Amino acid sequence: MNPASPAIDTDGVTALLERGRTLATPVLRAAVGRLAPPMDTVAAYHFGWIDAEGHPTTGDSGKAVRPALALLSAEAAGAAPEVGIPGAVAVELVHNFSLLHDDLMDGDEQRRHRDTVWKVHGPAQAILVGDALFALANEILLELGTVDAGRATRRLTQASRKLIDGQAQDISYEHRERVTVEECLEMEGNKTGALLACAVSIGAVLGGADDRTADTLEKYGYHLGLAFQAVDDLLGIWGDPDATGKQTWSDLRQRKKSLPVVAALAAGGEASERLARILAADAKKSESEIADFTEEEFASRAALIEEAGGREWTSQEARRQHTTAIAALDEIEMPQQVRAELVALADFVVVRKR
Amino acid sequence: MNPASPAIDTDGVTALLERGRTLATPVLRAAVGRLAPPMDTVAAYHFGWIDAEGHPTTGDSGKAVRPALALLSAEAAGAAPEVGIPGAVAVELVHNFSLLHDDLMDGDEQRRHRDTVWKVHGPAQAILVGDALFALANEILLELGTVDAGRATRRLTQASRKLIDGQAQDISYEHRERVTVEECLEMEGNKTGALLACAVSIGAVLGGADDRTADTLEKYGYHLGLAFQAVDDLLGIWGDPDATGKQTWSDLRQRKKSLPVVAALAAGGEASERLARILAADAKKSESEIADFTEEEFASRAALIEEAGGREWTSQEARRQHTTAIAALDEIEMPQQVRAELVALADFVVVRKR
Repeated sequence: MNPASPAIDTDGVTALLERGRTLATPVLRAAVGRLAPPMDTVAAYHFGWIDAEGHPTTGDSGKAVRPALALLSAEAAGAAPEVGIPGAVAVELVHNFSLLHDDLMDGDEQRRHRDTVWKVHGPAQAILVGDALFALANEILLELGTVDAGRATRRLTQASRKLIDGQAQDISYEHRERVTVEECLEMEGNKTGALLACAVSIGAVLGGADDRTADTLEKYGYHLGLAFQAVDDLLGIWGDPDATGKQTWSDLRQRKKSLPVVAALAAGGEASERLARILAADAKKSESEIADFTEEEFASRAALIEEAGGREWTSQEARRQHTTAIAALDEIEMPQQVRAELVALADFVVVRKR
Repeated sequence: MNPASPAIDTDGVTALLERGRTLATPVLRAAVGRLAPPMDTVAAYHFGWIDAEGHPTTGDSGKAVRPALALLSAEAAGAAPEVGIPGAVAVELVHNFSLLHDDLMDGDEQRRHRDTVWKVHGPAQAILVGDALFALANEILLELGTVDAGRATRRLTQASRKLIDGQAQDISYEHRERVTVEECLEMEGNKTGALLACAVSIGAVLGGADDRTADTLEKYGYHLGLAFQAVDDLLGIWGDPDATGKQTWSDLRQRKKSLPVVAALAAGGEASERLARILAADAKKSESEIADFTEEEFASRAALIEEAGGREWTSQEARRQHTTAIAALDEIEMPQQVRAELVALADFVVVRKR
């Protein structure tokens, strides 16, 4: 097997993602159903269960990597996958709380091929429903009433704080001319790594795993999250809009200092310097001027990022994080089947197109 | 003693509020100090510890009723007041999370005589720092690592959800022509009663109190919260801006369906009907038209609310809730001194001017 492009077990991964969705979604829907109107409806729209007019849909509700991981997490501790369900639901609730608030803060108008909640239902509902989902996440776990549920909630709370730290960094970086590769990785570790790490430990903690086991599973999850985000950053520039559900050159439109950009700027050389000059000029432009760029203007920036090596570096970084993630699994005992499935999920994360 | 205007032990209440502030504030500041920049600074501004330029201030950081209650709560369960400190801090964090988000959603520009966070630092920081304080509240409690800390966090989470429900109702009522007195009381129970109730149970739970004791303390706190809010609603129309830190006729400017208004509309009679016609016409006006009203135009609306009996009904409601709150204290055993102090705090809540 070539480590650069793992031969993934597509059917196996599809089955794992499907199991996560099948077991977690009914519990997630019941949890969201606890919200008082109109928050229940707004949340159902956000999750893709109804359209803007309130009619049921069979829309795209995301890849569901986190629920799949939470169930595997329980199995890694020798428990039944069902033990991980409240953890899967809580992590999904926190993830979606952050999407609701981030889309509003970032002014993002589209997610999963649909208008974002603040566009359809207004900023106040995006704030409120985000808050409600965050509270609900802790409620779902704590009502289990066990010591392990308290431990799981504590880990979820710490991950949530990192998520918020990451968004704060993301916002502040957008106003800065230069961001280092290290700063970018730290931000992405907070924004994506921490909650994926929690997804991979939460089922095990609910299943009674000790802190060392949970910490090691989090190490796998954290690096998996960094691999996931590196791929997301590639898709944010070179992704197919039909697959990602985002606009073309989505991250360039927002002047995001994502990994390919900061790596290209850090690389030095002629293309890197040319890119730096262009982005410095772009930084002085207004948002509407950037929005009025032609496809060609974005394409030329993307080409410069690639020429400076930002695309290749980010691809390699995804593979490095993938390798580190998988290596962590060797530090603890777990059923062979579970280990193989965690590896397959990691492989999926680095080759996905959406 | 005249039950209509209790003779309160001012010195005793001042000492209780001062003790709450003295014991809780250093822990609160240390907790807020955990936030990553710039959120720590934004939070410090919100709490009134620094001004907009970052210089330390000795500003008004609120009445601190909740910390005082959380410490008394621990004592009600026979524990030392210090046992309630993490509860006091967690409740203050949740309270301030909701202020940050509500001010943004409601477009409120002033709080505690100063510009609100979204006015000074922008909407994104108001959302982010609110989120961070909410997460921090759970973190502070859960890191105690005890079963009772898990129970306390569960109660705090439930109260937080009610707080969010109440804000959702508050927003939806602003767009409705008619709100019943019952709907208004339900909203205020969620928005104010639930968290005050939690403040009064959280110290006891951390001190090992059983659920019946905690529930009864919450009953006192819930009705105290409704009394508190009734007084707030009176101050929102007839309060002295120098004392409250809000604009004159603050709630009328926002067309809030507060208790005096809904009670006046429900009263019937000539003044009530005249008020209904005027408010129905106001509802069709734009926000800027309302903002351009003269002082006299607000004053005439306030006079009609009073003439229709809305002011008197709300004063009586505050006293009714005060009575119900105090009666709940008889359902459980607690040290006589603690009971007397809870009564004194309830007395303070109904006679305060700010």
